[in-house]
Formats: sequence, structure tokens, C-alpha cells
Amino acid sequence: MEEVKLFRTWSSPYALRIVWALKLKGVEYETVYEDLSNKSSLLLEYNPVHKKVPVLLHNGTPICESLVILEYIDETWNTTARFLPKDPLARANARFWAKFNDDQVASLVFRAYVSQGAEQEEAVRLALEKLDIVEKQLSGKTFFSGESFGFLDLVFGWIAKYLGIFEKTGGIKLLEEERYPLIFAWIKRFCDISVIKQNWPDQNKLINKFQLMRDYFISAAAGCS
Amino acid sequence: MEEVKLFRTWSSPYALRIVWALKLKGVEYETVYEDLSNKSSLLLEYNPVHKKVPVLLHNGTPICESLVILEYIDETWNTTARFLPKDPLARANARFWAKFNDDQVASLVFRAYVSQGAEQEEAVRLALEKLDIVEKQLSGKTFFSGESFGFLDLVFGWIAKYLGIFEKTGGIKLLEEERYPLIFAWIKRFCDISVIKQNWPDQNKLINKFQLMRDYFISAAAGCS
Repeated sequence: MEEVKLFRTWSSPYALRIVWALKLKGVEYETVYEDLSNKSSLLLEYNPVHKKVPVLLHNGTPICESLVILEYIDETWNTTARFLPKDPLARANARFWAKFNDDQVASLVFRAYVSQGAEQEEAVRLALEKLDIVEKQLSGKTFFSGESFGFLDLVFGWIAKYLGIFEKTGGIKLLEEERYPLIFAWIKRFCDISVIKQNWPDQNKLINKFQLMRDYFISAAAGCS
Repeated sequence: MEEVKLFRTWSSPYALRIVWALKLKGVEYETVYEDLSNKSSLLLEYNPVHKKVPVLLHNGTPICESLVILEYIDETWNTTARFLPKDPLARANARFWAKFNDDQVASLVFRAYVSQGAEQEEAVRLALEKLDIVEKQLSGKTFFSGESFGFLDLVFGWIAKYLGIFEKTGGIKLLEEERYPLIFAWIKRFCDISVIKQNWPDQNKLINKFQLMRDYFISAAAGCS
């Protein structure tokens, strides 16, 4: 009997990737909800380097970093459709854009989200430049992964819900349908997939949570200036 | 007839990973040397997102990001020994530590290298904390990849030469043999591998190059303070 446990918070978009992946593969697992303001000794033991969620525990061995976990799940439970394509070039392409999302898009959007005034305006401008590049990636495609849903859709999936939360609670506008028609159309298709539709955290709880988080960042930044 | 071209600078440690990988696999390729202060139109065309080296061009298609290129090479020319292990757990482990090197070790060492005074002292302290974690990874192992040389040794390979260059030109001391006996022993083994030994850039040229780069960063930072 396999032991699969997912250490997550209820609100983390990185953990959500793993929820989607496990459910899409049909893997039975147990969820351990963490409070990052009071991390469990197990989380610190399983992810001593970063002390972050998500952590996947498989038969006693922890795997950390959401992109690494996604590839692990894809290689381990490989009887159903694979998230990553088989062709080395298509795989390299998927890994390149996944890294681009995590290093550039997500970090700039977050910077825009937790800043104010002129700093926020500049961060929004830079985030939009990255989203322009994301928009181009959807040109001629149904999903980020191509004709069908795959690895890159799991990676970019946060955009479908969290950008809206950031807009509502951060006083910024990022996704205009006129500028991003392909992302808008992809969001509709993505959110129609049942595993995606069924596993979003509660919208109002997310708004409350991120409002508090932003207030915390803004006041911390004010204390440093 | 295959076309394989590597766009690199003579001094980039990230490009050197790809040189080692191609030579270890016995892949014939052409080198295009770039000057990053005057990037070629081909580099801008092949890596429009990051405009950086290395770029591998394979039969007309560019692949960017050195970790992505390493996996591509491993999956494409897979007749000789694989860089990555076959076991999904060992593969996840390799990807986790590769990301740790690039995101944490290399970036903190670089910050220590291009700063001064109290900022440098703090960056050195943080970089040493990361190197302590790297040291632990070698416990009971011959190479980062285990009993034999592999993916993670290509990833951590820069430590064997560039840390010394940063020390010489940045006025910092990072690698003390007493604190890092396993890294020291690994460096000797790593540098004994013929493909590694034969492909380092010239030491004096590296010292000149990085001295100039550091001067540039320090004066740019001074202009902003």
C-alpha cells in the first residue's frame, strides 16, 4: 500500500499545482494543511532547505519544489496521459516556459501586488511586459501545452484565479481582455476542466487572506523605508 | 547531417556546463562566441526572452537556459551514459539541488562578489550558509551525483574554478578547506576528469575579465547610492 501525503496550505497556488496533478493522475493521497506562521516539525524536517509548501511525501521520502514535484508525479504515475510530451524539444520548451513563469511572471506580478505608488506603477509595467510574452505563447494553441491540456497549463494555472485576487486586493489592473484575448479564452477553457473547477480554494477566503498578506507586506516595507 | 551550434561567451560558467555536456556525449558542434556588450542579431533572435548565453541551436531550433539545455542534451544524445539517473526519486533530487545551486548558491556568491563593506560581509555570511548545505550534500559520496560523475557535477562544476576567481578579484574568502573538506576533495576529483581539465577558460584572462566586471558593478552601485 502506497503512502502519499501532500503538505500544503489551503491558499498556496504552488500547492494547487500538485493537487491538480495528483487528481488528474487519480492518485489517492492524504492532505496535511500547514499554517506557515506556525510550521509543523514535519514540514521543517521534510523541507529543511526552504521550509516551504508544497512537499509531497511518497512512501516516507519527501520531494520539494512544485516544478520538481510535477515532473516526479508525471514520471512515477505514468500509466495515464503524461503531462510532459515525449519529444525532447517539446520537453525543453515546456521546462523553459515553466521557469519563465516562476522566475519572471509570478515574481513580477507579486512585486506589483505588494508595492505602492511609483514602485507599484513600474512593477505593473514590467509585469504586463511579461504577460505580453505569455499571451504570445497561446497564439494558435488551445492550451499552453498545445492541442491538449498538459504540464504548462498546470504551471500557468494560477493566472486563472490568483491574478483576479491580486487585482481585487492590490488595487491593480493586470488582465484587460482587449490586451489579452488569448489568455482570457484560455482561462475559460482551463476553468471548464472538472479537476480544475472542483479544487479552487474559496474565493472570499482567498480575498480575505491576500488582503491581510498585502497589508502585512505594505506595513513591513513602510517600517524599512 | 546534424547541425549543432553553441552560442556562448568564452568566460560564462553557465555556457561551460554545455561545453562539458556536449563533449562528454561526443557531440560534434560549432561554437559561436558572443560579446554580451554587443550581442549578435542571431543571439537576440534565438533567445528573445532573456537575450543570454548559452543557447544551443539544434537543426535550426534554439534551446535556452542551461539546465533546460542539459536535460535536452541528455534526452537527445542518450546512447552513452546518462547524466540524470533513471529512478524518478533520484531525478527529482537532482533537479531540486540544481535549482538550489542556481537560485541560491550562485546568486548569493555573486552578491557577495559584487558588493562592499557591511553589505558584502552579510552576503558572504549568507553564501557560506548555502555552501554549508552544499558540503553536506557530498557526505558519503564521491561525486554530487553519487558514485559516479553526472548531472549535478556539471551543475556545481563552476565552484571548482569560479569561486577561486571571485576570491582573487573580489577580496572575499569563501572556500576554507577546514570548513569544506568534502568540496575540496570533490574539486580535485572533478578537475581530474579530462573533459573538465581540458575546457577551462584561461585563468589569467578570467581574472582580468572578472576584475573588470566587479569594478563595473561597484561603480554602478556607487552611482545609485
